[in-house]
Amino acid sequence: MCGIVGIVATTPVNQALYDALTVLQHRGQDAAGIVTSYDGNFKQRKANGLVRDVFETKHMYRLKGNIGIGHVRYPTAGSSSAAEAQPFYVNSPFGIALAHNGNLTNVQELREKCNKFHRHVNTTSDSEVLLNVFAHEIDKCNCDDITADEIFDAVHRVNDQIRGAYGVVSLILGVGLVAFRDPNGIRPLVLGQREGENGKTEYAVASESVALDILGFRLVRDVAPGEAIFVTEDGKLYNRICASETKLNPCIFEYVYFARPDSIMNGVSVYAARVHMGTMLGEKIKRDFADLDIDVVIPIPETSCDIAVEIAKCLGVPYRQGFVKNRYIGRTFIMPGQKQRKKSVRNKLNPIPAEFKGKNVLLVDDSIVRGTTSGQIVDMAHEAGAKKVYFASAAPEIRYPNVYGIDMPSSRELIAYGKTAEEVCRLIRADALIYQSLEDLEKAVRMENPELENFETSVFNGQYITNDIDENYLNFLDQVRNDDAKADKAWNDSTENLEIYNEA
Amino acid sequence: MCGIVGIVATTPVNQALYDALTVLQHRGQDAAGIVTSYDGNFKQRKANGLVRDVFETKHMYRLKGNIGIGHVRYPTAGSSSAAEAQPFYVNSPFGIALAHNGNLTNVQELREKCNKFHRHVNTTSDSEVLLNVFAHEIDKCNCDDITADEIFDAVHRVNDQIRGAYGVVSLILGVGLVAFRDPNGIRPLVLGQREGENGKTEYAVASESVALDILGFRLVRDVAPGEAIFVTEDGKLYNRICASETKLNPCIFEYVYFARPDSIMNGVSVYAARVHMGTMLGEKIKRDFADLDIDVVIPIPETSCDIAVEIAKCLGVPYRQGFVKNRYIGRTFIMPGQKQRKKSVRNKLNPIPAEFKGKNVLLVDDSIVRGTTSGQIVDMAHEAGAKKVYFASAAPEIRYPNVYGIDMPSSRELIAYGKTAEEVCRLIRADALIYQSLEDLEKAVRMENPELENFETSVFNGQYITNDIDENYLNFLDQVRNDDAKADKAWNDSTENLEIYNEA
Amino acid sequence: MCGIVGIVATTPVNQALYDALTVLQHRGQDAAGIVTSYDGNFKQRKANGLVRDVFETKHMYRLKGNIGIGHVRYPTAGSSSAAEAQPFYVNSPFGIALAHNGNLTNVQELREKCNKFHRHVNTTSDSEVLLNVFAHEIDKCNCDDITADEIFDAVHRVNDQIRGAYGVVSLILGVGLVAFRDPNGIRPLVLGQREGENGKTEYAVASESVALDILGFRLVRDVAPGEAIFVTEDGKLYNRICASETKLNPCIFEYVYFARPDSIMNGVSVYAARVHMGTMLGEKIKRDFADLDIDVVIPIPETSCDIAVEIAKCLGVPYRQGFVKNRYIGRTFIMPGQKQRKKSVRNKLNPIPAEFKGKNVLLVDDSIVRGTTSGQIVDMAHEAGAKKVYFASAAPEIRYPNVYGIDMPSSRELIAYGKTAEEVCRLIRADALIYQSLEDLEKAVRMENPELENFETSVFNGQYITNDIDENYLNFLDQVRNDDAKADKAWNDSTENLEIYNEA
Amino acid sequence: MCGIVGIVATTPVNQALYDALTVLQHRGQDAAGIVTSYDGNFKQRKANGLVRDVFETKHMYRLKGNIGIGHVRYPTAGSSSAAEAQPFYVNSPFGIALAHNGNLTNVQELREKCNKFHRHVNTTSDSEVLLNVFAHEIDKCNCDDITADEIFDAVHRVNDQIRGAYGVVSLILGVGLVAFRDPNGIRPLVLGQREGENGKTEYAVASESVALDILGFRLVRDVAPGEAIFVTEDGKLYNRICASETKLNPCIFEYVYFARPDSIMNGVSVYAARVHMGTMLGEKIKRDFADLDIDVVIPIPETSCDIAVEIAKCLGVPYRQGFVKNRYIGRTFIMPGQKQRKKSVRNKLNPIPAEFKGKNVLLVDDSIVRGTTSGQIVDMAHEAGAKKVYFASAAPEIRYPNVYGIDMPSSRELIAYGKTAEEVCRLIRADALIYQSLEDLEKAVRMENPELENFETSVFNGQYITNDIDENYLNFLDQVRNDDAKADKAWNDSTENLEIYNEA
Repeated sequence: MCGIVGIVATTPVNQALYDALTVLQHRGQDAAGIVTSYDGNFKQRKANGLVRDVFETKHMYRLKGNIGIGHVRYPTAGSSSAAEAQPFYVNSPFGIALAHNGNLTNVQELREKCNKFHRHVNTTSDSEVLLNVFAHEIDKCNCDDITADEIFDAVHRVNDQIRGAYGVVSLILGVGLVAFRDPNGIRPLVLGQREGENGKTEYAVASESVALDILGFRLVRDVAPGEAIFVTEDGKLYNRICASETKLNPCIFEYVYFARPDSIMNGVSVYAARVHMGTMLGEKIKRDFADLDIDVVIPIPETSCDIAVEIAKCLGVPYRQGFVKNRYIGRTFIMPGQKQRKKSVRNKLNPIPAEFKGKNVLLVDDSIVRGTTSGQIVDMAHEAGAKKVYFASAAPEIRYPNVYGIDMPSSRELIAYGKTAEEVCRLIRADALIYQSLEDLEKAVRMENPELENFETSVFNGQYITNDIDENYLNFLDQVRNDDAKADKAWNDSTENLEIYNEA
Repeated sequence: MCGIVGIVATTPVNQALYDALTVLQHRGQDAAGIVTSYDGNFKQRKANGLVRDVFETKHMYRLKGNIGIGHVRYPTAGSSSAAEAQPFYVNSPFGIALAHNGNLTNVQELREKCNKFHRHVNTTSDSEVLLNVFAHEIDKCNCDDITADEIFDAVHRVNDQIRGAYGVVSLILGVGLVAFRDPNGIRPLVLGQREGENGKTEYAVASESVALDILGFRLVRDVAPGEAIFVTEDGKLYNRICASETKLNPCIFEYVYFARPDSIMNGVSVYAARVHMGTMLGEKIKRDFADLDIDVVIPIPETSCDIAVEIAKCLGVPYRQGFVKNRYIGRTFIMPGQKQRKKSVRNKLNPIPAEFKGKNVLLVDDSIVRGTTSGQIVDMAHEAGAKKVYFASAAPEIRYPNVYGIDMPSSRELIAYGKTAEEVCRLIRADALIYQSLEDLEKAVRMENPELENFETSVFNGQYITNDIDENYLNFLDQVRNDDAKADKAWNDSTENLEIYNEA
Repeated sequence: MCGIVGIVATTPVNQALYDALTVLQHRGQDAAGIVTSYDGNFKQRKANGLVRDVFETKHMYRLKGNIGIGHVRYPTAGSSSAAEAQPFYVNSPFGIALAHNGNLTNVQELREKCNKFHRHVNTTSDSEVLLNVFAHEIDKCNCDDITADEIFDAVHRVNDQIRGAYGVVSLILGVGLVAFRDPNGIRPLVLGQREGENGKTEYAVASESVALDILGFRLVRDVAPGEAIFVTEDGKLYNRICASETKLNPCIFEYVYFARPDSIMNGVSVYAARVHMGTMLGEKIKRDFADLDIDVVIPIPETSCDIAVEIAKCLGVPYRQGFVKNRYIGRTFIMPGQKQRKKSVRNKLNPIPAEFKGKNVLLVDDSIVRGTTSGQIVDMAHEAGAKKVYFASAAPEIRYPNVYGIDMPSSRELIAYGKTAEEVCRLIRADALIYQSLEDLEKAVRMENPELENFETSVFNGQYITNDIDENYLNFLDQVRNDDAKADKAWNDSTENLEIYNEA
Repeated sequence: MCGIVGIVATTPVNQALYDALTVLQHRGQDAAGIVTSYDGNFKQRKANGLVRDVFETKHMYRLKGNIGIGHVRYPTAGSSSAAEAQPFYVNSPFGIALAHNGNLTNVQELREKCNKFHRHVNTTSDSEVLLNVFAHEIDKCNCDDITADEIFDAVHRVNDQIRGAYGVVSLILGVGLVAFRDPNGIRPLVLGQREGENGKTEYAVASESVALDILGFRLVRDVAPGEAIFVTEDGKLYNRICASETKLNPCIFEYVYFARPDSIMNGVSVYAARVHMGTMLGEKIKRDFADLDIDVVIPIPETSCDIAVEIAKCLGVPYRQGFVKNRYIGRTFIMPGQKQRKKSVRNKLNPIPAEFKGKNVLLVDDSIVRGTTSGQIVDMAHEAGAKKVYFASAAPEIRYPNVYGIDMPSSRELIAYGKTAEEVCRLIRADALIYQSLEDLEKAVRMENPELENFETSVFNGQYITNDIDENYLNFLDQVRNDDAKADKAWNDSTENLEIYNEA
C-alpha cells in the first residue's frame, strides 16, 4: 500500500502536498517524496523516512510551483529496497515525473519491453517500469502540440499493456497533471475540487478522501476504473475512460484495515463499513457461539476498536479497552558481548489485568495473517488472568498471497493456509475463534453502497481478477520478497543509512 | 511532567533504560538522557528529541555499566529552554548525576544558596539547582567512608531545604543509586525488583509502573512520601523516611490525564480510576442533565476514551469513536511571499459525519484548559451536522496555575478562571457543559485505594500544599514562562537546532 | 575548471576513482561525484563538498562495479549553482552517465535543440545539455547492436553541433566508457593503461596525468583534439578522430596556474614549464629592470614558488618564503547586533617581517586578475617594512573573459582591462610591475614540446579560437554569472545547505 | 602539542577566538572548543574535528560574551581518546573552565589526590586533572571576595604540586581570565594587547604570536616561566611569578617543527631560527661531506623548505621543489571481498622526475622519527632516477620519548634509538645521511636571542628537566599510548563517530 496525491492550484502547492502526505502517512511510512513543476523545471525532494523527517524548510523552499505530486511508500514486492523513493523521473519526452500505488503483475514482461526500447530502468521498482512504459507511449504522440486526446490515447495504450492494480499520478512538464486508475478499479483514487484565488477551480487527486478534507477540497467523486484525469498546468480538467473493459472491484482490505476510518471510498464510508463488520460478526457470534458466555469485548488496538464496539453492543456485554498500545516504539540494540533479548508483543501492547482477571474475554482483531502475534496476545490475555480467551477476526481466513500491492507473505507463511478455523484456533491457543465469513464481509461494505457488486478478495479465496496469476508468478513474487529481505539484511550489516541512488 | 527511571542490575542496563524511557515517553517528548556508571566513570548521552532519535547504536555502545538513570523531559517553568536535557552532572563530591520530575517552588532561594556555596548553576533548570543542593549536603558527609545513614541524613537535609514536588533519581559514583520522593508525595515514584543473574536481586525505580512491567520487574510498592531508596553499586538496598513530616497528596492530574492507563500509582490502577470517573460523571449527567436527550457519546481521543465508554454505558446510549485522531503531525512552513495558512484543530482531529448528523452528541474530554481547542471541536461537531453538542469534562473547572511540575498556563489564560460553568459553556459554544465535581473526581480515584485521604488539587481550588505559593511566586512563574517563550522564539529565528551547552 | 576521470578495470574501481578525484581536487572543490556500472545498473553518489566529505563507507559500498567515471566541480558560467553536481544521467537510450570539464559556448542554441527533441534539461548546467545532445545522437544509432563505429559517428555529430572547450567522460550502460576531447584541444585529457588481473589491460582517462600516477597507470599519451576513446565493458579499446578539422590549442592557463606541477600535459611537464616561465621573466627583469636593485625574491604561495625560485636564481638574489600561507581558512559569522569585521588578505597570508624590513623585495605571483588581492599584498609588504615593493606576474595582462571553462570575471572587473602595465602598477600601489610577455609565456611552455604551435590565450589577447564569441555571448555570460551570484545569495539567506535537486 | 587562546575584550570574542583557533590549527586538528562567559553563565561548544567543521552559526550565536578561551587538540599521552575535547569545566567553586597545552608527568599522583578530595575526574585527560587541582586550590581562597593575590597564591600551590610542561588558560566565572605557564618555561605562551572600544585596553594570551597578529593584538611579551596572568572580567590585568624556582627551557622542537614560521617565541623568530638551522647544516655538509657532489637540494615539504633554501644557498647549488605534496588526503575504504591496497607515501608526495633523473640529490627534512617514511621517500627519489640520494635532518638523532606534550613514539620505535647515524643511513637506504648536531641546533635558535641558555631537548639526549622521569613513568606512558591505540581500534570497529561524553 502506498499513498499518492496530485494537485493543480493557483498558488504554491508545497505545503498542501506535505499536509496531504501527512494524513496519508498510514499508507506508507518507509519513504516520502514530492515533485513540483516551476518555471519549466521539476523541483524534487524524496528520501527514506516519515514525511515530517524527510521535508525540512530548505526542501520546502525549493519545492516551488503551483502544481505537484507526492507519494508515501509502503514496501511491496519488487520495490521494498530502501533506495527507491518515489516519484520517479525521466527527462524524455518533456520531462515526466510519476508516483504510483499498487503493483504490476506483468512487470517482468514490461521490463523486457523497456530494454527493447533502450529505456533503462535503474531500480527494481515497478513504478519506474510503469513510468517508462508511460513515457514511451507519450513519446508516440505529436509532442510538439500534445492534446488531451493524445494523452488519453497514450494512457489507453498503457492500460492495454500493463496488468495489475494501480493508482497513478504524474506530471508532464509544460503540460500538466495526469492521473489514472486501473481498469479493474482495485486501488482507490478520488477527485476533489475547491475554489482557488480569483475564483478559479483547483483540482486534487488522492488515494483517500481524508487528504482532500484536510486541504479544504470537496470530494467530487472516485476516479472510475480505467479513467484518466488530465488537468493542464492552467487548471483545465479533462477526463476519459481509457480502457476497453472496466469494472469496479475495490480491494476489500482497504475497508478492513488500510484506509482511515474517516475516508470515503467508492461511495463507502470506511468507518460505517467497519461498524457493519462488527454487526455482522456480532450476529454470527450470537447465532453460532451462543454458549461462549462472553463477559467483555476487548479490541486489539486500534483498527478493530470500531468493530469491537459494535460487537459488544450486539452481544450486550461491556466494551473495554483492555490493551494499551505503546505509542512510542524503540529499537533493540545489538551490543557486542551482550545477550540478545527476545522482543515480544509486550513492546507493543500492555494489558490492564483487571479487565481480564476471571473473565471470559472476546478479543477482536481486524485479521489474522501469520498468527504469531495473535498467539502471543492470546497468551498475554491468559497470563493477565482471563478464564477463557476467545478471538474474533473481522476478516475471513487469509490463505493466499496478495499481488495487487499489499505486502502479504507467501502462502506457506499464512497460518490459515490449508487449515480450518479450528486448527488455527488451536495454533493461536485460543478457546474459540470466530472468523467473519467472506459473504458477510462483502455485505458489510455493500450495505453502504449497494452498487458494489464485486471486490478484490483474492487473499481469502485465491481468485485473482487479472487472470494472469499462476504458480510461476507467485514463485517470482516470493523470490523477490526473499531477495529483498536478504538484500536489506546485507545492507544493514554494512551501512547505516542508505541514500537514494536513482539521482540523475 | 517528566519521566525518570533508575536501575541497579547485574548486567548492562543501557537497553533496559532505553526501553523504560520509551514507555515513559508520554511524560515528556522534548529531550531524553541516560547516564550510566562504568569502571569508575560516568557515561552519558542526552539531547533534545524523542528517545528513538536521541539514542543511536554508538551512544548505546558507550553507555556501558550495570547501573544507570534516565530521563525524558516535558518542559516546565524554568526548564523549558531547549538546551537543558537531563540528567545533570557535578564532579564534586564523588561525581553525582541526577534527574528529576517535578518543580521546586523555592528555586530562587536555593539558587542564592548555591551562589553562597560558590557552586555554579549554569542553566535555568531547577534540576541543576536540586543537584547542587544535594551535592552540597553529600559533601558534608564523611566522604571517605560514606554510609547509607549518612546519605539518608543528607537527603533529609535536602528535604528540609527544598520545597515543591519531586521524584528524584541520582547516581553517586562508586557509591550507588539514590532515589527519593517529596515529603508531600505529590509526584509519583515506584519501586520494582526482579531476579538477575545468579539469583541476585535487581532493583528499579521509575515514575510509573509500566516502565517496570516492560522490563520484567515486579512492582513492589510506591516509594513513600519523604522516603529515600539507596541501592549500592553492589545491589544492596537501604531505605528510610528522610523527612520530619510526610503525607501522601498525589497529584490528581496524573489519574485524569498524564499517567498511562496501565500504570498503578499509589495503589490505584489509573485505568480503573478513569472508569470510575466515567461512572461518576455518567451518574451526574443522568441525575442533573436528564433532559439532554443524548443520542451518542463521543470521546475526544484518546485519554478520555475509557471515561466515555463508561459514561455511555451509564447513560445506556451508544459509544462511538466519531473523531479520528491524526497520528502523524506535520509542520507549517513559513515560505517567503506565501500567505500563512491558519492551522486549525482539523490537523489533529477529523470527524465521521455520520455519527454527528442529526444527533444530540455528548463529547467527552479529560479536561478544559484554555478552551480554545474545545471550542473548535464543538464547532466541528456542529458543522458535521450535530443537532446539539454537549460537552463533558472528566476534570472540574481548572482555575489556577500548577506549581508542581505540570505546565499549565497562568490564571488569566485559563478559560474557567473567575467563570461559572455556564459562562464557559457559552464561550466554547456548546449546548451544555458538564464538569465533574472535585469531590466526585477524588472519590473516583479513592475507590481504588480508600487510604488516599488527600490529593494535590490546586489547579481546581487554588490550595497549594506546600503553603509557600503567593502572588509573587506566581508572577515569577509567569515571567519565567513568558521569558522562555520569547527566548524560544528568538532561537527559532536565528538557529535551526540547538545543542546542549551544559557540556563539560 | 573541473576534473574528470574514467576507468575500465578488471576489479572494482570505486577506490581508484576516489583516489583519482582526490588528486584532481585542486581542479574543483565545489562538488564531487562518481557513477559506476554494476550488474546492469548505474550506482551513483554525488554531492556538494570535498571528495573526502562526499564519499562515506556506505556510498563506496554502493559504488560497485569495474567500470566508472568521476568528477570534481569548479563552478563555471551556467553551472555554478550549488545544486548541480556531476555526473549527470539520462535513462534513454541505454542509460548514459556523463561528466565534463570545460564550457560550451553555444549552449543556448543547444538547449533549444533539446527542447525541440522533447529532451528536458532540468538544470542550468551545460553538462546536462551536452549529455542530452550526446544521448540524442546515440539514439540515432542501431541501438540493438551498437558498434564502435556508430559511437564514433555519434561523437562526430556531437562535435559538429557543440562549440567550446570540453573533455568528456561518459558511461553507456551495457556498452562501455566513451571519452572525447574538443577538436581544438583546449581542455586536457590523457590516456593511461596498466596491467590488471590475469594480465588484461586496464584503461583510464583523466584530466591530468597525476591521476594516472597515483593509480599505477602509465601515461600512454594525450587524447588528441577531436579524438574519441571507446573502451567496452569488456576492456577492448577503440579510438578515432571524430571531427573534420582538429588542431591543438591547449589552454595556456593550465600551465600557469591550474594544473599540478607534477602533471604532464600535451607532452609538457607543468613543473618544467613553470621553471621556464621563471627563467623568461628573470631574464626580462635583468634586461629591462636592471635598476631595481632587488634584494630578495618572495613568492606569493604557492603556485608561483617554482617560478620565483628560478627568477631568484636568474637574478642572483636570495629566494625567501617571506609569506606564510594560512592552511586553514575559517568563516566570518554574521551575528545579530555585532559589527561586521572586514576580512582582509591577512586571513590568507602572513608576512615574516625580517624578510621585508629595509629591503627591495620582488613579489612573484602567477597572475593578476582583479588586482584587489595583489594591492593588499603590496600594502602588507610595505607595512612589514619593505623599502621598495616590486611585483612580477608570470602571466601577461589579463584583459578578457574566459569562455572555455575558467571562471574569470567580466572585462570591466579585470584590473588590466584597457590599462597599461604602468597604470596597473599604480593601482596595486607597487613600485614596479613586471608582466611576462605573451610571447615569452608561450615560449616557456613550448620549450618542453616544440610541436605546440598554438595556445588558447584569449584572456590575454581576446582572440577566441571557436570564432563564435561576440558581445552578445559575453553579455549572456556576464548575466549568468551575476544571476548565479544573486541566486546563491538568495539561497544563503533562506537555507543553510542545499541538496541536489536533479534527483530521479 | 595543542593550541590555546584566551581573550578579555570589550566586545564579543566569539569570532576572535574562532579566528585564533584557525591560525593555531596546525597545533592540533583533532578537536576544537570554545568557552565564553556571558551574563553569569558559561557558553560552550566543543567537538572533534577541524575548527571550520566544529563551529557553525548556531554555535557562534550561543557563544556570547566579551571574555573567553579556546583550544585545539593534538592527541598526547593520556588524552588521545577521541572523546576528550577541551576546555573542561567544573561547577565548583565559581564555575571554572580550563584548557591546556602540554603534559603532566605526575598525573597518576594528582589523580589520586583528586580522588582523595572526592573530586571526580571523568576522563583520562590530564587537563581535567589539572582543572580539578586548580579548582581545589581556588576553593581554599576566600571565595566571597577573591583577590588577585589569592588567585596567584592558588596558582603557586598548583605549580608546587604539578610537574611537567604546560601553558594554561582558564576562566573563573564572575572573576576573570587566569593564564599561566610552567616554571620551566617548556611550553610557549605569549601576551598581547590592543585598544578596544572607548580606548580600553584588551588582552589576549595564546600559544603563538600569529594568533595575536591575526586579531590585531600587539605582541607584548612572552609569559615568563612560572608566571600567572590574571585579567578581571572588567579588563584589569595583574601578573606575578607564582613559583619558587623558575627557568626558561623552551622546547626546541617548537622551532624545528611545530610552530608556524611567522611566530615569535621567547624572542626568537621561528622563521629566522629555521634559516639559521639551514646555515648550520649547510656549513656542516660543506665541511664534513664535501665529497658528496650534490647537484640539487630538494625539501620534503613543507616545514623544511626554509631550511633547504638556506642549505642550497650555502652549498651554492640549486634549490628545487622536487616533491609535490598532495593537499587533499583521502581515505582507504575497506570493502568486503576486495583486496586491501597498501597505502604508500605516494598518497602524500609525488616526485617531479626531471629534478631527480641522473642527479645527486640532497633531500632535506626537519627530523627523522620512526624512519619508515624517510625510507620510502629515499626509495621514491631513487625510482625517479636519482644517481645518489643524500638525506639531511635539521634535527639531531631522536632517541628518547617526549614527556612534555609532543606525541613521540616509545624508544624502541625510534629508528635512531641505540643506533649511529651510519646505521640509520643504511636503514633508510640513503647514500649519505647528515644529522644536525644538537649543539648547532641550539646555536641556531640562540642566534636570535642570546639570552636563551637552555632548551628542552630530551628527545635527543634523554635529559628530562623535571627530573622525575624514570623507567616506570616511561612504561606507563607507553602503556597509555598503546591502550589508546587499542581503544581507538575498538571504537572504530563498533561505532562510526564518537561524541564527547563529558557533558553535564
